[in-house]
Amino acid sequence: MKTGQELYKKAKQIIPGGTMLLSKKPELFLPEFWPSYFSKAKGCKIWTLDNEELIDMSLMGVGTNSLGYGNDEVDNEVKNIINKGNMSTLNCPEEVRLAEELINMNPWASMVKFARTGGEANAISIRIARAASGKDGVAICGYHGWHDWYLSVNHNSKKDGLSDHLIPGLEPLGVPKNLKNSAYPFQYNNYLELENLVKNKNIGVIKMEVVRNHGPKDDFLTKVRNLASKNNIVLIFDECTSGFRETYGGIYKKYNVEPDMVIYGKAMGNGYAITAVVGKKEIMEYAKNTFISSTFWTERIGPAAALKSLEIMQNIKSWDIITSIGNKIKRGWEEIANNYNIFISSSAIPAVISFNFESKNKAYYKTYITQQMLKKGILGSTNFYACTEHNEKYIDNYLSNLDEIFQTIAKCESGEINVKKILDGEVCNSGFGRLN
Amino acid sequence: MKTGQELYKKAKQIIPGGTMLLSKKPELFLPEFWPSYFSKAKGCKIWTLDNEELIDMSLMGVGTNSLGYGNDEVDNEVKNIINKGNMSTLNCPEEVRLAEELINMNPWASMVKFARTGGEANAISIRIARAASGKDGVAICGYHGWHDWYLSVNHNSKKDGLSDHLIPGLEPLGVPKNLKNSAYPFQYNNYLELENLVKNKNIGVIKMEVVRNHGPKDDFLTKVRNLASKNNIVLIFDECTSGFRETYGGIYKKYNVEPDMVIYGKAMGNGYAITAVVGKKEIMEYAKNTFISSTFWTERIGPAAALKSLEIMQNIKSWDIITSIGNKIKRGWEEIANNYNIFISSSAIPAVISFNFESKNKAYYKTYITQQMLKKGILGSTNFYACTEHNEKYIDNYLSNLDEIFQTIAKCESGEINVKKILDGEVCNSGFGRLN
Repeated sequence: MKTGQELYKKAKQIIPGGTMLLSKKPELFLPEFWPSYFSKAKGCKIWTLDNEELIDMSLMGVGTNSLGYGNDEVDNEVKNIINKGNMSTLNCPEEVRLAEELINMNPWASMVKFARTGGEANAISIRIARAASGKDGVAICGYHGWHDWYLSVNHNSKKDGLSDHLIPGLEPLGVPKNLKNSAYPFQYNNYLELENLVKNKNIGVIKMEVVRNHGPKDDFLTKVRNLASKNNIVLIFDECTSGFRETYGGIYKKYNVEPDMVIYGKAMGNGYAITAVVGKKEIMEYAKNTFISSTFWTERIGPAAALKSLEIMQNIKSWDIITSIGNKIKRGWEEIANNYNIFISSSAIPAVISFNFESKNKAYYKTYITQQMLKKGILGSTNFYACTEHNEKYIDNYLSNLDEIFQTIAKCESGEINVKKILDGEVCNSGFGRLN
Repeated sequence: MKTGQELYKKAKQIIPGGTMLLSKKPELFLPEFWPSYFSKAKGCKIWTLDNEELIDMSLMGVGTNSLGYGNDEVDNEVKNIINKGNMSTLNCPEEVRLAEELINMNPWASMVKFARTGGEANAISIRIARAASGKDGVAICGYHGWHDWYLSVNHNSKKDGLSDHLIPGLEPLGVPKNLKNSAYPFQYNNYLELENLVKNKNIGVIKMEVVRNHGPKDDFLTKVRNLASKNNIVLIFDECTSGFRETYGGIYKKYNVEPDMVIYGKAMGNGYAITAVVGKKEIMEYAKNTFISSTFWTERIGPAAALKSLEIMQNIKSWDIITSIGNKIKRGWEEIANNYNIFISSSAIPAVISFNFESKNKAYYKTYITQQMLKKGILGSTNFYACTEHNEKYIDNYLSNLDEIFQTIAKCESGEINVKKILDGEVCNSGFGRLN
């Protein structure tokens, strides 16, 4: 057994669940064989604890590093900040400059609050929006973090409401049961469902991802915007994942619609912890009348890293670069799948895409991809988060390996190869119940 | 007007409340004159945006930097980590090593979860404890962050329950009203009050600071421990502030009592964002059956900075050093106050102490101290958080300046000087209502 898996076995004994982020659980990729830990990361390469070099053609830090790992310009800025001092009794000026930049980026907005994690940014925006609307009811569509306000959806009588937004089968253990019926899910592009919630559930806040597996249909976003405005509902776009993937800022800019608040995270600091809540003044000012405060929201690396990352993004128009790379991968997937008569469906944002096999064996195929890619020195699965360091060479190499893998998958589909025999170990896990 | 105050005026236009941490609001110190922002920090010195050098004899990052600002060993380790890569699709091995270290430090515990802010660590511990106890009721004593579960205390019918724990006059705006009667405050050292809560309120969790303004009386902590054990209540000690101030780990170690969970933050990473929830296996494992997950909890600087900070703390027994420094300051305060016949009361943990004037003019005196200290190149107020860099020279200089200041305060008390005339500007703010 390799060093990473050995360490992970120890981790599971002393860290419940083994990791801090569900999406970094080795069992989601390749049970017993996923390298699990890194010693070094640079560009789009990762080195394992056994010093094996791998090309990351998977999640790039789960979306944090669209400018590549260890981006020199960002890292030098952070080291410079460390030399000056990361923390003091006084505040860091970088947070004010970052607030200005985010307001420039979102001209309809005029105030900003920062946090260090996406869950926090989500919870801050909900607190402020509830205070501003005077109503506790929230309608949600998408994944919005681990906090009580969101998981409480699964206390509602309609069971497993987060199934399509987060993960199926999640018991909201430890979330106060009296939060029942305070947050309600709605399906993307199902305007009638949302309209009914607004009519019947005292909704004060709509929080949603702007694009899910598909983009908006039948003017969905415009209708949501109008519904919110007409009913004094605060509309929040969660751009933690989608931000900086297709525009300088939110993906909402593509759709001629503006929220009342938007939240950013993930790519904003290129791997350094920083998230932001950006909103209209008349709403954001409610933050002054409630208590939202945390010591480590004042550290300096976060805003400094974000300022430098945003500067680089603007200079090179990184969102165009990663979208173009993502589209190449997507076309590659589709061509290969077509060639082998395998049906896959892929998601909507090219720079953070994934695909699904339309097959009862999909978990086996997903695991098989990861297993075979790893043998070729690639971290790969059924997703691809693009960074500016993913050059033609890496892409071609990845697709040519994928072609070979799909050849075997096609034979499994036709029955020529027994799907149960293609894996060296266990099939990857999916769904919350199976993970623990 | 100086550059820091100018920037703060701009900040208040674009950041609700102006800062990310209430305790770093300039109005709490010296309205219009507090330097507000820093350009550089090193040892126990801070440089303002106008490059004025100041000795920090106040909050040392609000408790984050007990080994001084810009500690070379910690900073070099962090820069080394940045060179290796702060983030990747895989996990960082440092988090497992830090978990092991925290378990060694707390031998009754065997599992750990990390976050990046104190509010998060508090909310994680509450989620897990509620899941483990199967009851939603929480009894609290102390300050435990900004999250809904905690602020909901002020929705209870007994008004302003957080007055003695956080701040008076806080409206829990934006906190769901159906969280009413899920968290209840109790006064430190008031065992009967807690016992009544346990009898009447379906309490599953007791969360408290181990020491408040005073230490425990009449075996308070032992009684609380026994009460929790007898009623299957999860006992959580919040050591975000008190941790590493008097022992290697929690201050609870002084009192021969063990919690079921303990949380650490603040000093643990010496200014880098890292917080931890440490607990017994049978309780912590409930984290696997709920959803607690965040992308930026996987960044590498946090655990790496903590590992190095803990190593240094152990090597030099920093808790003894800062306690000794704090005691010097405390004795200095008391001597000066005695000499001028002024009554002050000071808090219980020497390394993070504060004092209060027992006078109707106390806000004026507090402001006056800050005003006069600033003229001497010192950041000072009615508190002092010790770091290992606070040497005799700084302490003597500070106390000799304080002596002069108390001379004037004594004349205000006697009526010889009009207290309204000692300030160059406004009196500092206190209480939530006045702050906004």
